[in-house]
Amino acid sequence: MAQKRQLITLLTDFGTADYFVAAMKGAAFTIHPEVDFVDVSHDIANHDIFAAAYNLRCYYNTYPRFTTHVVVVDPGVGSSRRPIFVMTDNYNFIGPDNGVFSYIYQLEAVNRVVHLTTDYYWRRPVSPTFHGRDVFAPVAAWHAKGIEPRRMGDEISDYVRLDAPTPKQVAPTMFKGAVIHVDRFGNLVTNFTEEHLPASRAATARLRVNGREIHSVVTHFAAAPPKEPFAYLGSQGFVEIGVFKTSAARALEARRGMEVDLAFSVAS
Amino acid sequence: MAQKRQLITLLTDFGTADYFVAAMKGAAFTIHPEVDFVDVSHDIANHDIFAAAYNLRCYYNTYPRFTTHVVVVDPGVGSSRRPIFVMTDNYNFIGPDNGVFSYIYQLEAVNRVVHLTTDYYWRRPVSPTFHGRDVFAPVAAWHAKGIEPRRMGDEISDYVRLDAPTPKQVAPTMFKGAVIHVDRFGNLVTNFTEEHLPASRAATARLRVNGREIHSVVTHFAAAPPKEPFAYLGSQGFVEIGVFKTSAARALEARRGMEVDLAFSVAS
Amino acid sequence: MAQKRQLITLLTDFGTADYFVAAMKGAAFTIHPEVDFVDVSHDIANHDIFAAAYNLRCYYNTYPRFTTHVVVVDPGVGSSRRPIFVMTDNYNFIGPDNGVFSYIYQLEAVNRVVHLTTDYYWRRPVSPTFHGRDVFAPVAAWHAKGIEPRRMGDEISDYVRLDAPTPKQVAPTMFKGAVIHVDRFGNLVTNFTEEHLPASRAATARLRVNGREIHSVVTHFAAAPPKEPFAYLGSQGFVEIGVFKTSAARALEARRGMEVDLAFSVAS
Repeated sequence: MAQKRQLITLLTDFGTADYFVAAMKGAAFTIHPEVDFVDVSHDIANHDIFAAAYNLRCYYNTYPRFTTHVVVVDPGVGSSRRPIFVMTDNYNFIGPDNGVFSYIYQLEAVNRVVHLTTDYYWRRPVSPTFHGRDVFAPVAAWHAKGIEPRRMGDEISDYVRLDAPTPKQVAPTMFKGAVIHVDRFGNLVTNFTEEHLPASRAATARLRVNGREIHSVVTHFAAAPPKEPFAYLGSQGFVEIGVFKTSAARALEARRGMEVDLAFSVAS
Repeated sequence: MAQKRQLITLLTDFGTADYFVAAMKGAAFTIHPEVDFVDVSHDIANHDIFAAAYNLRCYYNTYPRFTTHVVVVDPGVGSSRRPIFVMTDNYNFIGPDNGVFSYIYQLEAVNRVVHLTTDYYWRRPVSPTFHGRDVFAPVAAWHAKGIEPRRMGDEISDYVRLDAPTPKQVAPTMFKGAVIHVDRFGNLVTNFTEEHLPASRAATARLRVNGREIHSVVTHFAAAPPKEPFAYLGSQGFVEIGVFKTSAARALEARRGMEVDLAFSVAS
Repeated sequence: MAQKRQLITLLTDFGTADYFVAAMKGAAFTIHPEVDFVDVSHDIANHDIFAAAYNLRCYYNTYPRFTTHVVVVDPGVGSSRRPIFVMTDNYNFIGPDNGVFSYIYQLEAVNRVVHLTTDYYWRRPVSPTFHGRDVFAPVAAWHAKGIEPRRMGDEISDYVRLDAPTPKQVAPTMFKGAVIHVDRFGNLVTNFTEEHLPASRAATARLRVNGREIHSVVTHFAAAPPKEPFAYLGSQGFVEIGVFKTSAARALEARRGMEVDLAFSVAS
């Protein structure tokens, strides 16, 4: 019987100019040469745990069941923050216990979270500054080889959950939300969803960010008036703000964390 | 019998800081876990269809026959621009019908161009802003799994062809061309070929770009005089302009689209 | 019997915006579709041979035995600099003979260095500006297919070795070293090792770079005082200088090549 493919995705803030990611992969291949890596991104801003959590939310469930997702955005490397293995009904997650898996705890049925302590499954000696190479990648490779997480440490329940900001209703026809991500095209991802802005109310909606009003809600980029900011339901289910063929972030001088108002001119 | 390898190359303007490319791959692996992706580049300038077309021209035919090349530079995503599958005698191409395959139509024997309409082979619901994940990657995966393009939509013949700029002869010993690409080293790729500048005429050739003359034509970088711009026949068969160990684009303040004159001091 | 996996790592200065790396891979797949590439980095600064040599040193031995490491940082491409194949007891290395393998010659038992001359194993015609595609990748693919390096050219012994800068003892309690690398986080990698700064002497050590003193030596980032520069033994065995959650290079206005003093306040 052919072995099923062992997919391991990698999301880090290690950049692509250094050898860091290559050393992680080498450490894993040495344990189990059959693993297959997918580089999600290594350009998460340094130590930006929330950006890692947000991105993970956006791709993890496009993958086949039982894919292993490794996330190494880890400002506390070498300190008492715990390395963990999270098993859900559908996927495996490996990384530091610093909140990078916060969305996963909300969206998936968590079966077991293991504090990784069994150094037999690590590369030794473990550098206190490079757990990606010495702990996380080896653990992913051993797991691909068939080792169950329960053999790698003890179950815990007090893992770190960050609060993702959620919109608040401040009046019958008004919500306050926030920009939670700015993508490579300069589109602003808000934390509003279809629930806040259903298609039926699109015609009467207006948004405001950084003092600028957005009046049009469209279904796709090319339907938007040129140079005008517009809102649309993004591919992740969040309301986004864009400007066709240019950067909304630049046009609106907006950035992550800014407040976004959503109002309807007619109550419904 | 071992399955032949299913290579799929990816060229996009999605950047590497976001989850976009990882989501495309996840969608494909979910359909057919055996596909093998090659990331060509995700750093095409936003919406730069011509840059995608030029780059595709440069690598597609280094690949084994029947490799599938996916290109997603797609400012019209969600609009009426059509998603297409192009089969030639040697390769498969999947992407938007916006001109990204213009060079392919010139260089390859096109067997069939299919307008992709059968949403059975898509990820659903299809986001109107992310056909890379929901249309192009799934179609590539289904094709790797054995589905013929004719089952995915209807054949068309009015696909979009952009005119690539070609040099013009303006006098017996003079041609006018253009810079069609600036590479990472700052070398200027022109649309002149060996036909315009054969080795036999190299000694008498001079080029002019942005008011600066280039007198020397060399075979490789290290043969060039230091700090002086020089011309050479590049690895794609186009005449390029470089400066050894520095950027010709910066030294000559040149950029894509600028006119380039090629003249010979003695008619031949 | 299943074929063992054929891992080939790639380190270049080709960037990720152009088709260069994809063309190398295509040329290799065409010869031997079963090779598996690992992209180490394509963001080595243009023509920076030492940065390539340093990075190679840092990942090559995390890989399984007999992995092939290809390095293409090659300002002399097309000139008389030789393309070479280096076999050690454990690994294979392919690239230009310009010093990129200098650390390998120090750290590995070299069995054979072959000057690649047999153009049967190249892609033809060979572009004088793109040996990555036309020489190095094809040679790696043929080797993965079973061709021994001795069939690809003649053994040489006068291959190029660059001197890596090593620290000098200038007084009983003082060494002079240098910054040999600045990583993506802005950490300064020096050429001091545990030998110069053993844990037993950490309490009395102080370093100086660019006129700034570093007094604290820690084991990991989170143990450091905020905003203060500190030294630590990095994951490569070199003493590094960092600032927690910020760039030491920026904080200290330091860069590669700068002198670093290491002194102990009490002789031991």
